[in-house]
Amino acid sequence: MLEAEFTYNLPGVVQSLRESREKTHKIRHLGKVRELPDRQSIEAILEGLFAALFPTHYGRADLTDESIDYFVGNVLSVALNSLTEQIRRGLYFSAGNDLTREVTFNELSESLTARFASELPAIRALIVSDIRAAMSGDPAATSVSEILLCYPGVSAAIHYRIAHSLYQLGAPLLARFISEIAHSRTGVDIHPGAMIGEGFFIDHGTGVVIGQTAILGKNIRLYQAVTLGAKRFPEDGDGNLIKGADRHPILEDDVVIYAGATVLGRITIGARSTIGGNVWLTKNVPPDSNISQAQSLGH
Amino acid sequence: MLEAEFTYNLPGVVQSLRESREKTHKIRHLGKVRELPDRQSIEAILEGLFAALFPTHYGRADLTDESIDYFVGNVLSVALNSLTEQIRRGLYFSAGNDLTREVTFNELSESLTARFASELPAIRALIVSDIRAAMSGDPAATSVSEILLCYPGVSAAIHYRIAHSLYQLGAPLLARFISEIAHSRTGVDIHPGAMIGEGFFIDHGTGVVIGQTAILGKNIRLYQAVTLGAKRFPEDGDGNLIKGADRHPILEDDVVIYAGATVLGRITIGARSTIGGNVWLTKNVPPDSNISQAQSLGH
Amino acid sequence: MLEAEFTYNLPGVVQSLRESREKTHKIRHLGKVRELPDRQSIEAILEGLFAALFPTHYGRADLTDESIDYFVGNVLSVALNSLTEQIRRGLYFSAGNDLTREVTFNELSESLTARFASELPAIRALIVSDIRAAMSGDPAATSVSEILLCYPGVSAAIHYRIAHSLYQLGAPLLARFISEIAHSRTGVDIHPGAMIGEGFFIDHGTGVVIGQTAILGKNIRLYQAVTLGAKRFPEDGDGNLIKGADRHPILEDDVVIYAGATVLGRITIGARSTIGGNVWLTKNVPPDSNISQAQSLGH
Amino acid sequence: MLEAEFTYNLPGVVQSLRESREKTHKIRHLGKVRELPDRQSIEAILEGLFAALFPTHYGRADLTDESIDYFVGNVLSVALNSLTEQIRRGLYFSAGNDLTREVTFNELSESLTARFASELPAIRALIVSDIRAAMSGDPAATSVSEILLCYPGVSAAIHYRIAHSLYQLGAPLLARFISEIAHSRTGVDIHPGAMIGEGFFIDHGTGVVIGQTAILGKNIRLYQAVTLGAKRFPEDGDGNLIKGADRHPILEDDVVIYAGATVLGRITIGARSTIGGNVWLTKNVPPDSNISQAQSLGH
Amino acid sequence: MLEAEFTYNLPGVVQSLRESREKTHKIRHLGKVRELPDRQSIEAILEGLFAALFPTHYGRADLTDESIDYFVGNVLSVALNSLTEQIRRGLYFSAGNDLTREVTFNELSESLTARFASELPAIRALIVSDIRAAMSGDPAATSVSEILLCYPGVSAAIHYRIAHSLYQLGAPLLARFISEIAHSRTGVDIHPGAMIGEGFFIDHGTGVVIGQTAILGKNIRLYQAVTLGAKRFPEDGDGNLIKGADRHPILEDDVVIYAGATVLGRITIGARSTIGGNVWLTKNVPPDSNISQAQSLGH
Amino acid sequence: MLEAEFTYNLPGVVQSLRESREKTHKIRHLGKVRELPDRQSIEAILEGLFAALFPTHYGRADLTDESIDYFVGNVLSVALNSLTEQIRRGLYFSAGNDLTREVTFNELSESLTARFASELPAIRALIVSDIRAAMSGDPAATSVSEILLCYPGVSAAIHYRIAHSLYQLGAPLLARFISEIAHSRTGVDIHPGAMIGEGFFIDHGTGVVIGQTAILGKNIRLYQAVTLGAKRFPEDGDGNLIKGADRHPILEDDVVIYAGATVLGRITIGARSTIGGNVWLTKNVPPDSNISQAQSLGH
Repeated sequence: MLEAEFTYNLPGVVQSLRESREKTHKIRHLGKVRELPDRQSIEAILEGLFAALFPTHYGRADLTDESIDYFVGNVLSVALNSLTEQIRRGLYFSAGNDLTREVTFNELSESLTARFASELPAIRALIVSDIRAAMSGDPAATSVSEILLCYPGVSAAIHYRIAHSLYQLGAPLLARFISEIAHSRTGVDIHPGAMIGEGFFIDHGTGVVIGQTAILGKNIRLYQAVTLGAKRFPEDGDGNLIKGADRHPILEDDVVIYAGATVLGRITIGARSTIGGNVWLTKNVPPDSNISQAQSLGH
Repeated sequence: MLEAEFTYNLPGVVQSLRESREKTHKIRHLGKVRELPDRQSIEAILEGLFAALFPTHYGRADLTDESIDYFVGNVLSVALNSLTEQIRRGLYFSAGNDLTREVTFNELSESLTARFASELPAIRALIVSDIRAAMSGDPAATSVSEILLCYPGVSAAIHYRIAHSLYQLGAPLLARFISEIAHSRTGVDIHPGAMIGEGFFIDHGTGVVIGQTAILGKNIRLYQAVTLGAKRFPEDGDGNLIKGADRHPILEDDVVIYAGATVLGRITIGARSTIGGNVWLTKNVPPDSNISQAQSLGH
Repeated sequence: MLEAEFTYNLPGVVQSLRESREKTHKIRHLGKVRELPDRQSIEAILEGLFAALFPTHYGRADLTDESIDYFVGNVLSVALNSLTEQIRRGLYFSAGNDLTREVTFNELSESLTARFASELPAIRALIVSDIRAAMSGDPAATSVSEILLCYPGVSAAIHYRIAHSLYQLGAPLLARFISEIAHSRTGVDIHPGAMIGEGFFIDHGTGVVIGQTAILGKNIRLYQAVTLGAKRFPEDGDGNLIKGADRHPILEDDVVIYAGATVLGRITIGARSTIGGNVWLTKNVPPDSNISQAQSLGH
Repeated sequence: MLEAEFTYNLPGVVQSLRESREKTHKIRHLGKVRELPDRQSIEAILEGLFAALFPTHYGRADLTDESIDYFVGNVLSVALNSLTEQIRRGLYFSAGNDLTREVTFNELSESLTARFASELPAIRALIVSDIRAAMSGDPAATSVSEILLCYPGVSAAIHYRIAHSLYQLGAPLLARFISEIAHSRTGVDIHPGAMIGEGFFIDHGTGVVIGQTAILGKNIRLYQAVTLGAKRFPEDGDGNLIKGADRHPILEDDVVIYAGATVLGRITIGARSTIGGNVWLTKNVPPDSNISQAQSLGH
Repeated sequence: MLEAEFTYNLPGVVQSLRESREKTHKIRHLGKVRELPDRQSIEAILEGLFAALFPTHYGRADLTDESIDYFVGNVLSVALNSLTEQIRRGLYFSAGNDLTREVTFNELSESLTARFASELPAIRALIVSDIRAAMSGDPAATSVSEILLCYPGVSAAIHYRIAHSLYQLGAPLLARFISEIAHSRTGVDIHPGAMIGEGFFIDHGTGVVIGQTAILGKNIRLYQAVTLGAKRFPEDGDGNLIKGADRHPILEDDVVIYAGATVLGRITIGARSTIGGNVWLTKNVPPDSNISQAQSLGH
Repeated sequence: MLEAEFTYNLPGVVQSLRESREKTHKIRHLGKVRELPDRQSIEAILEGLFAALFPTHYGRADLTDESIDYFVGNVLSVALNSLTEQIRRGLYFSAGNDLTREVTFNELSESLTARFASELPAIRALIVSDIRAAMSGDPAATSVSEILLCYPGVSAAIHYRIAHSLYQLGAPLLARFISEIAHSRTGVDIHPGAMIGEGFFIDHGTGVVIGQTAILGKNIRLYQAVTLGAKRFPEDGDGNLIKGADRHPILEDDVVIYAGATVLGRITIGARSTIGGNVWLTKNVPPDSNISQAQSLGH
């Protein structure tokens, strides 16, 4: 049969796409196809970790003292097994063409996952401090359950606490994947490399961006659309971006930043300062400052 | 077998998480575990209510005059039964340790749901006014169907109309849950306590925040990233937040607010006023005002 | 049985909703019920197209040289069949009461889909240019895979490239549906009518809005919450909005616009210009300009 | 790449299978591919019809007087729409290469489905008579609900009543599909062409076979592994089977046949007769007979 | 609109079905609709119990010493909670119109489930004896895993062991539901009231029927299509069946019955006897007998 | 908390079940837990193979000349990958504690699967011969599609053809798993070790059993409940069953066996013979014989 008679010319399109992949617009340079981490598995892992951390809110509704530890142990076991596999894929993938280390990756991903598991109680402690910060920071909040179920900023914080732990343990691709899932769900974009102290609260949240090298102290409160970003990107002599350099703000303890404020560059905002809404800030601020936008409204 | 030989030390982690829940980082103080409202059920309820309100857009594609009432009646029946259960859980949960009223909650949730059902035609009328506002307010809109299927601002309005009704009838936790689902889907965060008149339209929508005590008149039009927030939070003598006090703006009829404007505090924006993009506004504005940001651009 | 004894008075509510649909708050004026495009099908089509374009990232994890073309051909075949049906529904729906053309729509949707299929390699080439722009534009980016899996701005660009092709081929309702799905997933709202050159990169992305008649050259870089919008809407003599008129900005090649900037109206930003964060811009800007917000911060 | 290097030689296998389909082992002779009825859809139709007939047993568990008619109407509407489509496929398929009647098939399948719908109350009456027969015929039966939920013979009867109606109305392929689904579920194989009076009961059921031209009167009771089959198949002069000729037994009212009996050929078993277990019967039996296997057991 | 114009006359059919349910062919006589046990839940409970009993064969494939108890505890907890609810429904339903005992049923179903849970280790011991009987009784069996995964007779035995325990504890409707699920899956129909000793093995299985009052000793081996049934049903003076009377065979230890044999009535087959294929047996047999069918084959 | 207060005493039951698994009723003797083949995966593999063999009947309904090879190639690729994994598990499992060959198993399962793939066209040819036998053997059969969709005997034959190929290639556990799935679906139990020639047809099917070492020639026709079994099991000197010895019948070409006949032992039924219903046969039969049960019916 002549292909020209086909409705969609599938053979032609399939062939063109193959050429695009292999020659014209090739974007992977691998000698062998390798499995990538996949979103569905990571979402299931997150569901398991949330349930293990807060079983009565994110787990089964019918848990009792008799059954709760079995539930937590089982959901953890499933999530950690899957996490080991996803971390292995991430490590294997990032290794480029040096695949001699495949066995090492299997062991490494297992031990890395075990270390992550041992950090879960500490992660839970941080999240509880975040929930308390939400309870005391929002006059509309009525209960811990409302906060756990209905606050996107708290959801973003939980995702971040998990992603940051994985990032520090050596699973950066997994960590980024989780931060992007959180971004999609909550509108809050926190790079897992950022360091954030206890009692962290983001209200409303949509549009918040926190960069890779940002450092936030204890009891930081942010409102929607706050950016903690880079002012400019350092380049090397050839004009290429230098990856990983410190370029995001440092917030000392008890800083509050209102909606829409943009804070850029490796500046320090001193403890207990308040930054007003829509402020554009690129210089250091001493402790106990109160920065607000100039009022310049015409009629 | 020695636990130390285990891959993940599950027994140790499970034990630490139990201690975290019960002692160190306890966040619930219940004598008995109680079922919470769950997101999956509420999403199914919303799907049912959307289908009952607009069966040809959100329901079955093959409905006819012969089948449409059976479809609406059945989808409503399922949604209302489930809503009764979810409201019961919310009431029961909010009751704290006073569980003597369990039977009362069953009856209350049923009658509350019945009242909500009787309001559905009125809710539909408000939503139709919102759709018409979108049709006349956006030059890119081409049909009612495009608006119902493709406008996140209209989706946010439908969620709000439902949530607000439940909020006023006495199911605040359910209402908040719905508003958070809308927030996650559309990027629009409207507290269900806000009061909004007919003909309400949000264009693009991402980043819009409308606070708990805001009051919006008829024919309000908002663009993306508009905040109708609180300026500061009133505290009592001990420095604790006073929950529920009026603290968000009042918008009279026919006000338009462009993208990124921030309106804070219990101020009133007079009828027919236009607030420009990125404006920062904390004072009353008389009717028919036209507020815009000062132009101060350097080259 | 008396309806008054019913728990929810379903017959009364169903009847009121029917009256609302047919009389009081009627929003469709069709002589016959017609099937609308549905979100679930379109999401499945998008999943198929993503997999056909980047099979190792969005398709099956276990693909080999032996199996990849079968996978691509099959996933394309399923997606294109479904796309034909959805386009047919959109055409049929948009035709209003002139249904004499039903057969024509069947043929038209098939040929339109075939033309779309033939554009897929070119669409892939544009997306590869977008990925490369992300790689060179973000110092935190570490690999093509991280960009494909974790960058909402790149996800938004892929959705846009697909939607724009369908929009230009004559399937505007489908195109808008896709852009809204992208908006919901990424917080980035690009109207499918906008024209955007190769090497397009949006970082973080939440809150970006690009209007229907915007024209963007090559190598444009945008940050979160940038608006490329209309200043005002042209009206005809009767005060009705004129639909479709040119009303959004033109960006020449190599323009960068930082977070929160608002660019409104049919203005032109000259090549290689940089627009700073939170800038409010409504006038033409010559090439190589560097616009930033006036610093006016009070202490 | 050489195909010989492939793991599974997919191209070779795919090519061989195509040749097998098109040349060597071709079993379809169609000018155009046509959609066949599919099992998943038919199973969903059956689920819907069972629910419409016995909503409190096979439908939703929470039905009330208020909701039951909406449920029945909606589940029927969905099932009948799908049934129309499946019947259309069956008619279209059976038409061979005479496809000029495609439009006729659409109308025919719709009117045939409507006639089937109008027979549902009569079908329900027959099934109720079957249930009563089970209740009075099995000393282990304790309630109507146990019979509806736990008796494969009753399940087989319900499937048969539905399939027989479709068979007589002119949808034989659908009818056969349903009888095979019943066979797979219950081990009872009743050809939909068989004619069976009210009060029919099969106990245990596994292995029962009732042929296409069998005629069973009222109040027939059968036990497991009873065959009502053909003795030999009539052939025409060329040795080809004559399709459709009467070749299976006639059972008059109130006949009981015990487990494992084999009744073959166009014979008549007179009213009120009892046929014992494992009997092999190929001759007429007068009314009120009591046939049992000769006892011939050696030690 | 005239209903006569409708495609399927849904209102007429729905009305006729309501009349059939309420008047003409009414089969339930309840003052209030009550929820029945449902097959989907019971199938999930069975899946859970199978997994708890043999976690490495019917549970998760990746279990380790570290995780297996969490898995078993969790899967049991879910299954037992659901079993309690299903038993409650069964009790409540069987109570007819005497609903004053609703609270009692809640407690009763919970304590009954607890007693069932405590019997699980003993049930497992019996099943292990059945598996060993299969291993030693079938020359084609190669491993315990093959037996657990591929032998319908063993699957039927596991279902029976569970159903029988529930039957004896006082949940007969649940028990019957389980036996019917087993029947549908394996073709083996064992009434849960039958009593069967350890080391029970059915080979092939299809068509085996074991009646309610049958008693089987230890190490019984049956082949396909064996019936252990009632010869006739005892009636009271009015010709009504007497429910529950002893009417099925007793098999002493170590009896083997070959394919197709039919054993009817309250007879006793003595220990170590062998009954040949297709034998029809209605009289007592002394121990160590060897019964076979008379050979009477004509040419 | 005292465990005695628990509702179900989960800790006690879990502990008892562990003891049952590890000590009292231990049935596996492995040094390490190994993954077993799982039914869900094998069912998916079968669905894929059926679709690859008969894509228009068991695959997608919308296939065209343009898309069919992509569909077949893709569905095969998925099925073969999964089959490789399931075969690997089966080999690994059967290896007992000799796990030094793990790598070998990986390679072996891949090459075994490749050989199986290369046999698929020949398997299809056999199945087509079986379909033709059904078409010519049953007067009720109306089309190839009816036979493929509605004949359990043909479904059983397809399962057998696949299972037998895997059995001969060296994957016996997989093969048995498939034969048991077929048994559950069709009531036909064919051991994958049996050898069956082309043109094989089973009508109705329920209760047919064909043993491991049976040999069937060409154009064999069987009816429901036919057993081709072993007369007795050979034992070694210690009374243990000798596994795998020839013990089932040989049927020469063109033999027909009617419903319920039982043929036992290593006997030969000569070509063109007919065995009547319910016949019990344990001796050789010369070609062209016509065996029927003696008529011995009392009144």
